[in-house]
Amino acid sequence: ENEDQKTVFEQAIEELESTELALLLESLPLHQRLERWQQVPDEDRVDVLVAMRAEPRQTIIESFEESELQSLLSGLHAEDLIELAETLPESVIDTALGNMDASQRKHYQLSAQYDDERIGRYVDHELLILPRTARVRQAMRLIRKNLPEYTDCIYLIQRNGAFVGTVLVHKLYAADPLTPLVELCIDDPVTVSADSYLTDAAEKMEHSGLTALPVIDVNQLLLGRITLRLALEITREEYESQLMATAGMDEDEDLFAPVIRSSKRRATWLGINLLTAFLASWSIGLFEGTLQQIVALAVLMPIVASMGGIAGSQTLTLIIRGIALGQISKGNFKPLLIKEVSVGILNGLLWALVIGAIAGIWFGSLSIGSVIAAAIVVNIIIAAFAGVVIPLVLDTLDIDPALSGSVILTTVTDVVGFVAFLGLGTVFLL
Amino acid sequence: ENEDQKTVFEQAIEELESTELALLLESLPLHQRLERWQQVPDEDRVDVLVAMRAEPRQTIIESFEESELQSLLSGLHAEDLIELAETLPESVIDTALGNMDASQRKHYQLSAQYDDERIGRYVDHELLILPRTARVRQAMRLIRKNLPEYTDCIYLIQRNGAFVGTVLVHKLYAADPLTPLVELCIDDPVTVSADSYLTDAAEKMEHSGLTALPVIDVNQLLLGRITLRLALEITREEYESQLMATAGMDEDEDLFAPVIRSSKRRATWLGINLLTAFLASWSIGLFEGTLQQIVALAVLMPIVASMGGIAGSQTLTLIIRGIALGQISKGNFKPLLIKEVSVGILNGLLWALVIGAIAGIWFGSLSIGSVIAAAIVVNIIIAAFAGVVIPLVLDTLDIDPALSGSVILTTVTDVVGFVAFLGLGTVFLL
Repeated sequence: ENEDQKTVFEQAIEELESTELALLLESLPLHQRLERWQQVPDEDRVDVLVAMRAEPRQTIIESFEESELQSLLSGLHAEDLIELAETLPESVIDTALGNMDASQRKHYQLSAQYDDERIGRYVDHELLILPRTARVRQAMRLIRKNLPEYTDCIYLIQRNGAFVGTVLVHKLYAADPLTPLVELCIDDPVTVSADSYLTDAAEKMEHSGLTALPVIDVNQLLLGRITLRLALEITREEYESQLMATAGMDEDEDLFAPVIRSSKRRATWLGINLLTAFLASWSIGLFEGTLQQIVALAVLMPIVASMGGIAGSQTLTLIIRGIALGQISKGNFKPLLIKEVSVGILNGLLWALVIGAIAGIWFGSLSIGSVIAAAIVVNIIIAAFAGVVIPLVLDTLDIDPALSGSVILTTVTDVVGFVAFLGLGTVFLL
Repeated sequence: ENEDQKTVFEQAIEELESTELALLLESLPLHQRLERWQQVPDEDRVDVLVAMRAEPRQTIIESFEESELQSLLSGLHAEDLIELAETLPESVIDTALGNMDASQRKHYQLSAQYDDERIGRYVDHELLILPRTARVRQAMRLIRKNLPEYTDCIYLIQRNGAFVGTVLVHKLYAADPLTPLVELCIDDPVTVSADSYLTDAAEKMEHSGLTALPVIDVNQLLLGRITLRLALEITREEYESQLMATAGMDEDEDLFAPVIRSSKRRATWLGINLLTAFLASWSIGLFEGTLQQIVALAVLMPIVASMGGIAGSQTLTLIIRGIALGQISKGNFKPLLIKEVSVGILNGLLWALVIGAIAGIWFGSLSIGSVIAAAIVVNIIIAAFAGVVIPLVLDTLDIDPALSGSVILTTVTDVVGFVAFLGLGTVFLL
């Protein structure tokens, strides 16, 4: 069986692109991952490392001898080093920079000024660039020599490197070889500012109808380009990190992270949850006397909390999507709140009836049925309210609502649910 | 303020692309949405409708007079009608088909054979196609006439429409006008099968290095193309529907759906949750006698359930991502289970100590501390186990783990948590 796997993997190496190979390596337990890594051909290694998520990549880089690492990283492109930088020791980055030719080193230094949320950091440098005085003839020569993937434009720059304009490659062919390129420039060329957030840049890219856009800095300097493919990668990573955030993890989490490291990291999230759980528990503790006398309340109380939690998380999810899509503003906050609370009222009443009836019959007590029904209505309505307000407040505070929204919401619905139910029980059942 | 909004919107209409306009309309409450819709210029209306999510789009279509609808839908492209079809009455689809020219109607009929999970349904038809006998000269003529967005290739077909090969547009320029195109065809051209799942097709598109790929049916017939931009849209919708699924909603959910409709739909999810909540409640009910004597157990029991739920959902989220990335297979299931359960054991022990100590001090009882500690260990380990197994079983059964994974998991961690805690309490505390 092990033999079989080997064959499959060796075949895979030949057929797969580096991103797919990266996914495959990520899916393997540590020792197998390192074993398989040895079978990755030298010429693909940098691409595969670049394509991997930071944490599994680190497991491979940590296994290198110093000399192995140095040789792997010789002749690196600026954008590869940028991707790898977070998982490399300073000394290695310095060596890699030393091995680079001057233009790549310049690219690296310009990109490294931007943090990992800005597009300036991730631009590539495979642009076709010509001076603003160039003619069609020169452009044709450039194109015949080498056309990088996703190239549909040539960019013109001033002598100081400032962006001047964009010429569509396919416009060249019908033009006279002596025509100055500036005459072919498109009107109002779309550019992306280097300090744009990744998702904003990706959106602009998508809506431009082109396959690449020039990225410029504050001084109009042409820094590099963003391609439609990079936009796709940004979009995917954005959503992936949102998915992982809902469980307090991040996008770089290794499927096979070492147990200790993994436990430590998740412990934080469990600890945060514990605080909220104790809060819920403490709110129950306020009614110990009541619980002692009416044990049915203890049996039923998780239902109140749980229904509130689910109703709230439905609203929360809708709002989180809306925020991600840029659809939520002061302008529609109020009607949205009204709509969600109305839905809460309807569903609160519906399920109050159902749960009240079942609980009433189960414990043979109309009052218990009525108390739980009232608590359900209260909790589902509060949940809808909290589901709208919490993510908006978090967003205003620049905290990712996908990360902490659901913990806070559940705390609210637990505490409100327990207090409403046991409180009403104390007043009406004792 | 209302005046201001109008101006902003009118400005937006001029500057925004149809997809952005669609997002904007979706973000408005119903009456405002219909009001603003009136300001969308006639020539953009079809594009905006196509770009909208199905449910908010329906609210606009429902507001049309029959005649208004008919005129809007005259001269539609096949791919637009495919997108709109699910929100249109049969009679309107028939009229729209009647108004189409023969080739568009043929496109529509071919695409409509594929269901909404297959790429064949969503291909566009802006391909540059030539007979296999054509020469460079003809290709150049075609390109000069009109180059659709994202076009980097020309496709050659046989007389019966079967796909023959792909010629890179930029290879044409250096070639002699009389060269037969077949001589310029790339080796092993990548094609996408029309019955590929959307995400598979998008992945193939992304990895091809091209900006569009030909889509062919089982008979090798060239059906249309997928572009890198379509791949981006597919990726975004896929993740969006996964996000919404976690709260039992779907991607087409309208932010401002009518309250009644919205309540109805969410009621289902609440109902499913109620069943699981009653299961949890019933498991507590088994220990009514114990609870009556030791009310501290009622106060503490939500902590056990909640810690198990959080630990389980961390594992679940990691596995759901792995499944989405195609990284989980029989080959790594066992080491993955071992790793996650190990993480569960470590975190179980850690938090058992913490919670045991706090509970012991709170209620001044070493035995209560010990019982909750033991229950925490049990529940967190079972949670890790369930977090791996549940999504894999669901995936095998072709049920979306993002949709139902977390409900099932929570049921497990609730029931196990309550039974372990109250069960141990019954044995050791009474």
